[in-house]
Amino acid sequence: MDSIEKEIIKFRDERDWKQFHNARTLAASIVIESAELLELFQWAKDEEIEEIVEKKLDKIKDEIADIYAYLVILAHDLGINLQDAVREKMKKNARKYPVDKAKGTSKKYTEFVE
Amino acid sequence: MDSIEKEIIKFRDERDWKQFHNARTLAASIVIESAELLELFQWAKDEEIEEIVEKKLDKIKDEIADIYAYLVILAHDLGINLQDAVREKMKKNARKYPVDKAKGTSKKYTEFVE
Amino acid sequence: MDSIEKEIIKFRDERDWKQFHNARTLAASIVIESAELLELFQWAKDEEIEEIVEKKLDKIKDEIADIYAYLVILAHDLGINLQDAVREKMKKNARKYPVDKAKGTSKKYTEFVE
Amino acid sequence: MDSIEKEIIKFRDERDWKQFHNARTLAASIVIESAELLELFQWAKDEEIEEIVEKKLDKIKDEIADIYAYLVILAHDLGINLQDAVREKMKKNARKYPVDKAKGTSKKYTEFVE
Repeated sequence: MDSIEKEIIKFRDERDWKQFHNARTLAASIVIESAELLELFQWAKDEEIEEIVEKKLDKIKDEIADIYAYLVILAHDLGINLQDAVREKMKKNARKYPVDKAKGTSKKYTEFVE
Repeated sequence: MDSIEKEIIKFRDERDWKQFHNARTLAASIVIESAELLELFQWAKDEEIEEIVEKKLDKIKDEIADIYAYLVILAHDLGINLQDAVREKMKKNARKYPVDKAKGTSKKYTEFVE
Repeated sequence: MDSIEKEIIKFRDERDWKQFHNARTLAASIVIESAELLELFQWAKDEEIEEIVEKKLDKIKDEIADIYAYLVILAHDLGINLQDAVREKMKKNARKYPVDKAKGTSKKYTEFVE
Repeated sequence: MDSIEKEIIKFRDERDWKQFHNARTLAASIVIESAELLELFQWAKDEEIEEIVEKKLDKIKDEIADIYAYLVILAHDLGINLQDAVREKMKKNARKYPVDKAKGTSKKYTEFVE
């Protein structure tokens, strides 16, 4: 367990909050926190986004921290290593999105023309 | 930059996908991926959650990896250190949720009785 | 246009808010409001849900009203009739979820065994 | 009960799906469906939104229908009249967002300067 994971789990366990945590409640919590993050940009035009980032950076940091904390707890409780999971996923995605087909396009792989 | 961050950013930049990434599109992406994670538990009763975790662990890992990847990219692009952000947030939360008031309750701090 | 649609659009147009509304901002708004609704049940055990509904009915009504208002605006702006859309969708779903296969199960149609 | 509500509830009850429905699962379902709607615009620039609406109108209709169906079921099961709820909410919002302050701005009422 790395240091930040230990600190987050310690914070949780000191408060005896594990009883409220399962894969569903933690998934819901990530949705809820990320929707709060999205709310900061709810009505923004593309060209207004950077300005909002500057003005609301502290709030953005807080929301990102909440998402990260719930994600670390979820991975911890399920015995998932975040780094390993993302490396395995990138391997899969490298096959779905090879550089020559995916470069510069936001198309979903299901939309690639053979 | 730690290793996993470098690998994720390399994957993104090889595909020239930075042009699609800003705080709003990445926040939306975290919402979308976490809603896909929540969907795995959409109709589950409390006592069915563990069984779903066992049966669908590979799918869960993939969704968690997607959330983590977008979160790392978002933090990277905004110059936010995830560990620092979570430590600062835990300091704030330690004041809102002191152990003696928060222990064993899922109440929001706004519901604590003085 | 039925009466409630007219009232909602009038409210919007009096405030000159159409300039902030497109399919993306309205979809995001429905996500944001429904995540606020979900937050009321964030940590609830199954058997606590009814009690929360009783205690927080006014807040629940407000969130449901927000979702409904954004949905009516979105359908209005895109020229979609909500009733027609849901009838067409139920026809599709009746084929995916015929009563004899779907009765009493929360399985996704992709999980039905032939 | 109006006609569309009757049809939706009939569809649900024929399949004996009420057992899976409570305020939490239905709120989660609205989040999930609206995130699928948002996904259609995940990477879109502002000026690309209209084109996506044209190209993907059938998919958009389906997602909107899903959101509407879950919302009608939720309101039905909780004894909430959608029209009444939205009228009450508009009354509250009319106080928070009076035309003279709210016209042409996407600011939240908490950001209005006195």
